[in-house]
Amino acid sequence: MEHINRPFLTTRSLDPENQESPIKFLKTATIPTPYFFRRNHFQYPSIDRQSIILPITGHVKKPLAFHYNQILELGTKKLSCLLECAGNNRSKFSPSVFGEQWDEGAISQGNWKGVPLSSLLEFTGIKPEAREVVFVGNDYGKHKEIKEHVPFARSLPLEKAMHPDTIIAYEYNERPLSLEHGYPFRLIVPGWYGMASVKWLKKIIVIADTFKGPFQSIDYVYYPSQIDPYPVTTINVNSIIQKPLDYEIIQEGVTTIEGIAWSGEKEVTKVEISFNGTHWSDANLVHSLEGVYTWANWKFHWNAPKGEHTIFCRATDLQGSIQPMEAMWNKKGYGYNAVAKIRVKVI
Amino acid sequence: MEHINRPFLTTRSLDPENQESPIKFLKTATIPTPYFFRRNHFQYPSIDRQSIILPITGHVKKPLAFHYNQILELGTKKLSCLLECAGNNRSKFSPSVFGEQWDEGAISQGNWKGVPLSSLLEFTGIKPEAREVVFVGNDYGKHKEIKEHVPFARSLPLEKAMHPDTIIAYEYNERPLSLEHGYPFRLIVPGWYGMASVKWLKKIIVIADTFKGPFQSIDYVYYPSQIDPYPVTTINVNSIIQKPLDYEIIQEGVTTIEGIAWSGEKEVTKVEISFNGTHWSDANLVHSLEGVYTWANWKFHWNAPKGEHTIFCRATDLQGSIQPMEAMWNKKGYGYNAVAKIRVKVI
Repeated sequence: MEHINRPFLTTRSLDPENQESPIKFLKTATIPTPYFFRRNHFQYPSIDRQSIILPITGHVKKPLAFHYNQILELGTKKLSCLLECAGNNRSKFSPSVFGEQWDEGAISQGNWKGVPLSSLLEFTGIKPEAREVVFVGNDYGKHKEIKEHVPFARSLPLEKAMHPDTIIAYEYNERPLSLEHGYPFRLIVPGWYGMASVKWLKKIIVIADTFKGPFQSIDYVYYPSQIDPYPVTTINVNSIIQKPLDYEIIQEGVTTIEGIAWSGEKEVTKVEISFNGTHWSDANLVHSLEGVYTWANWKFHWNAPKGEHTIFCRATDLQGSIQPMEAMWNKKGYGYNAVAKIRVKVI
Repeated sequence: MEHINRPFLTTRSLDPENQESPIKFLKTATIPTPYFFRRNHFQYPSIDRQSIILPITGHVKKPLAFHYNQILELGTKKLSCLLECAGNNRSKFSPSVFGEQWDEGAISQGNWKGVPLSSLLEFTGIKPEAREVVFVGNDYGKHKEIKEHVPFARSLPLEKAMHPDTIIAYEYNERPLSLEHGYPFRLIVPGWYGMASVKWLKKIIVIADTFKGPFQSIDYVYYPSQIDPYPVTTINVNSIIQKPLDYEIIQEGVTTIEGIAWSGEKEVTKVEISFNGTHWSDANLVHSLEGVYTWANWKFHWNAPKGEHTIFCRATDLQGSIQPMEAMWNKKGYGYNAVAKIRVKVI
């Protein structure tokens, strides 16, 4: 009789399904599909595999509906990219905020394959007055605040929509997307929080004004305490400590502290460790997947003396952005990126 | 393409494996084996199915080794019983304590089948000087504090060992025990915290003094701040709120608050709900499994008004024990049983 120790997704809610990746226990460069975090606003849509089309309409020169196989033939852009839920680490805000109480696991990464959205828009053309591109998912339900039934839908400004790395993905880690993660098509918006990467794409509409759907005008908006609200877009520079675990009891002597660090559209250039929050030492950084849209793994060798210790970790990106000691509190709990911090007891 | 939303165990550590039951999402009377919490001190032992014996030695009149099939033939005592880890809810202590940071899920229950230990001891007899019975598991490893290799072992006073409900279990929910939960034999000590219910039983030794193994003299001891240390034994009266979830946003109007409540060796007789911690109203109690060793399900219908609310829940048992507003803090974080408390926002 044998047993293999393996982690599981951590369940935050079942209706709709929200499950964290067991990120502290995953050390592989890409997260296998069963361990990819699941973040849903509604029930899973039912998808008819026999009749998959993706229409692009609105302020385009020539509206078109692409068939599944056409999309696969039109391009095979490969991209390594992480996705992080804007609410990741929401449970750490103080004062506490309402909503899914995500811990550190609403983040995952892997290899996406798809066609650049810009390639599809070359076929339809764009009218001069076009300003945004709206992405409508097949998922649908009652929005808690407006109390009306709506699909999940979001827009991108034309510039980000046309970026060569913004793709309509149909594969993850060399397999067709799973239903849980957006089959048949998921928009991937590298560097932006996960809400932008609309799953189960039903249609794309080019518009000449500003999209005002509730997942853009009510949710996924920062409501800080002192300044005006503004939309959630790019991923903040961030890091986690995977080992040791928080409040773990460990043995004295040389041990390896390790974790991951990332930032939205910029590469992480430095990870530092501190034991007092004042003096910082560089950790060793390894980029295991290519590109700026992936996390870096880091390690720090520590000769742990007996006693109780706090371990701090902070990342800096190419733009010079650095994790703050306190995250910017905001009413809906988005974008948490305070310095990672754990307590350990060395015996 | 269809998806069934189902919860998973929550991973606290992998080496050794410690996983919580997704208890907030389980509403069945018995917890299926894959959802039973896993609490390990060491790696899983390897068990040779071909040569399973259980020796009983020490201060007995006639030492005996029982074969697997003999145990099955000697008795079929059935017992519905919950097991709760002494460290369940450890993460809620304030100030925080070191060790596995269990949330609410280190608890599960179901139907056990086995032979009363007293039936086996009838065959061996007990010498007059006998005082305790020691149970040694097949799991083995380095104890973090004494830094020596030891098996997991615990003792019971003779009175509890001879109780007709203390059984050597070989089935859970009508199936042989799984390796994760103690195959081939697990001692079940109803009403005591889970550390007493030794898994992977290797041998039983009747002793004439007091057992001093580290899992009895160092771990599983309450070290409160003001009073002398004393051993962890019976399960404290306790309850959890399963629905709504903590910090959930819910719709105004009639809603059902629900959860479970339990106490070690006594039946739960009352569960009360409060919205201010002062005025308490009775919830409806349903005992879905027989016996005093199981949890009761409870429900409370609430006409939720808009706003932010705290919901408190407390259980009382037949002995009159009642959950306190604050749990008794102790250095190793055992026996947490403060009044359950969640926050919700009604919109």
